Amino acid sequence: MSLSVKCYRCGEHYDDDARVRCACGEPLWIDSDPTTFSWDDCRDRGGMWRYEALLPIDQPEGVAQAAGGTPLVRSPGLDDAAGARVFVKDEAENPTGAYKDRGSAVAVPHAVATNDDVVGTVSYGNMAISTAAHATSLGRECVVFVPEGTSSVRLELIAQYEPTIVQVAGNYAKLYADALDLSERLPIDVLVSDAPTRISGYKTALFEICEEFAPAVPDVIALPASSGGFASGVWLGIRELERAGVIEEPPRLCLVQTATADPLTRAFEAGAMDPTPLSPGEIGDTIAHSIGNPDPPSGARALTAVRDTNGTVVSVTDDEIRTAQRRFAVDGGFCVEPASATTLAGVSRLADRGVITADESVVLVPTGTGFKEIGTKETAVAAETIHRDVLRDRLETLLAR
Amino acid sequence: MSLSVKCYRCGEHYDDDARVRCACGEPLWIDSDPTTFSWDDCRDRGGMWRYEALLPIDQPEGVAQAAGGTPLVRSPGLDDAAGARVFVKDEAENPTGAYKDRGSAVAVPHAVATNDDVVGTVSYGNMAISTAAHATSLGRECVVFVPEGTSSVRLELIAQYEPTIVQVAGNYAKLYADALDLSERLPIDVLVSDAPTRISGYKTALFEICEEFAPAVPDVIALPASSGGFASGVWLGIRELERAGVIEEPPRLCLVQTATADPLTRAFEAGAMDPTPLSPGEIGDTIAHSIGNPDPPSGARALTAVRDTNGTVVSVTDDEIRTAQRRFAVDGGFCVEPASATTLAGVSRLADRGVITADESVVLVPTGTGFKEIGTKETAVAAETIHRDVLRDRLETLLAR
Repeated sequence: MSLSVKCYRCGEHYDDDARVRCACGEPLWIDSDPTTFSWDDCRDRGGMWRYEALLPIDQPEGVAQAAGGTPLVRSPGLDDAAGARVFVKDEAENPTGAYKDRGSAVAVPHAVATNDDVVGTVSYGNMAISTAAHATSLGRECVVFVPEGTSSVRLELIAQYEPTIVQVAGNYAKLYADALDLSERLPIDVLVSDAPTRISGYKTALFEICEEFAPAVPDVIALPASSGGFASGVWLGIRELERAGVIEEPPRLCLVQTATADPLTRAFEAGAMDPTPLSPGEIGDTIAHSIGNPDPPSGARALTAVRDTNGTVVSVTDDEIRTAQRRFAVDGGFCVEPASATTLAGVSRLADRGVITADESVVLVPTGTGFKEIGTKETAVAAETIHRDVLRDRLETLLAR
Repeated sequence: MSLSVKCYRCGEHYDDDARVRCACGEPLWIDSDPTTFSWDDCRDRGGMWRYEALLPIDQPEGVAQAAGGTPLVRSPGLDDAAGARVFVKDEAENPTGAYKDRGSAVAVPHAVATNDDVVGTVSYGNMAISTAAHATSLGRECVVFVPEGTSSVRLELIAQYEPTIVQVAGNYAKLYADALDLSERLPIDVLVSDAPTRISGYKTALFEICEEFAPAVPDVIALPASSGGFASGVWLGIRELERAGVIEEPPRLCLVQTATADPLTRAFEAGAMDPTPLSPGEIGDTIAHSIGNPDPPSGARALTAVRDTNGTVVSVTDDEIRTAQRRFAVDGGFCVEPASATTLAGVSRLADRGVITADESVVLVPTGTGFKEIGTKETAVAAETIHRDVLRDRLETLLAR
């Protein structure tokens, strides 16, 4: 099951699927041949495995089989907040509550089938949870590298799948490079954020969106952007559907960052090809901690994706994120994590700027559930206590308000 | 959009879809006519709305459109723990993380289209969260009745959708009857656990399972049982598919209760038609708090479902539930709430008794995600801290173990 990996920038090929980066420095991805693909080639299956023909592995059993196949719904309640015709692609409805399962569902079974190494990852959030879940379900040991001082709630989320958890002291941002080095030297396969097999899994989100809209395409797809891995996968999907002749005009990719960690926005606004890394002193706190990457390893590829699709990159503040998170819940009925709420906040900004217009169809992709973060707010919830003997009287007053 | 409701026991019909219970005392459900139905009549859609032809309302937009369509996967990692061939129907992959969304997706839009009443529900858990989410997404006010002393985390989960939360003092178990009374006298439509429109939504879980297995059927479907609402919906689905001639032999329904609140198990073992209600003094604490109903309003219907399908009812202890929850995570990769883990614990007991055999296909239905309950454990998570400068050395030792 050895696969060929390719560089999007210089075109170099490698017959080594453990390789993550090209000699030119850019990340690799897996080339598939979609030239004869049409929607009729989809398997009659739920989940992302209906696109098995374009995936590097066959459908596994277990939790990997349950990844993807998330709902895409028209959500008119969010139109006002967004300033556009909103569709929600609810990636929270994955086995571990995040789009990461699409990547793990390909990367982990592939790693397990290819070698005997321990599986690993670098993440203190959704990717750690997802990788640990998929590894243990296949009986494979897993090591997760998290930053020193990770909260007990987050450790508990990861620990339920019983990986070895290593809290790493020192500059955590350097751990991506460390991980590639460790994978080469030790019997561990650290599946980083943009491991080529993960990117293959991510492209299925784009396939699902486009199949649902076919033969039309949405005007805009809005994603939170951190490492650039998900944006890369979505762009890979767009390219494959274009080569297959299934879509003509691609949807515009709009990436949203938090204003406290905005290396892609900085680069995009400066017209640069590569992200503008933040120095440790420049990184601020944000409630959108899932997307706080100061030096995204697939950042240049994500920027290329944006330019190739005539898209854009925008940053939003924590206040905008809070407002958007509330709107997702109250106007949409969706419980999303702050990083996911950026999509609505970002589209709202772009609508204000006239970059997106009210009649355009915009797919917001909340990438992870908010349920993993409940119970951490400081504000107490108002809830009157009433004895049931007087409930009817009191309710009469309440309802008359 | 007024619908006819019918009593499963005495056969009485009512042309009043706000009516929940028959004059004979039993709960009502909505009769549909499946006689000409076949799988070819399914809509080409995701989610539960592919069965629109058998549902009492047309597909709504928004979060209701995102309900159902959950994965059903073969999960061989769980075979040993279960003592059977395990399939997992992961109801956690619903918009609010629980099967309740199937019920709310029908009941709430139906209520909103039918009357101007405030929507309400009686629940301190998944049903409150789901009802509040679906109501607010349609711009309808919602009142949620929870027990006095509900935890702040649980209040926060509900409060994000901004319903009016009323903590009720006094005997909470009586609130089901109170709710029916309030719905009749005040401008509030309290959608209780077995409101007929909810039951219609629940039957889609059974349709999805059977369509996936078609033309075969699974040998056993294992559900947690509390109010009896979900079991009723699944049985309604079985009856409709039988009448349509789509299935011949029904799957055996196995209901699992917690040993601390087991009115259905007691009745089943005594050969009784009606549940054996627990007195307040008999109700013990359990970690499976989602299924602690001491006097299930659809209990008699659930017992009839079990007998009709040659199924069974079994109770499990908190220790068995804890073990099963861990197995779900570690052997399956699924994060389930304790109430959902009962399914695996129950099947394991039944396999020990010889009621289920190792070659039988058993569908476990974890009804809700465990992510809403993380961060409440007392045990600290073990996680060594290592500086990245010495990571390679330390990892070498770790991997050599």
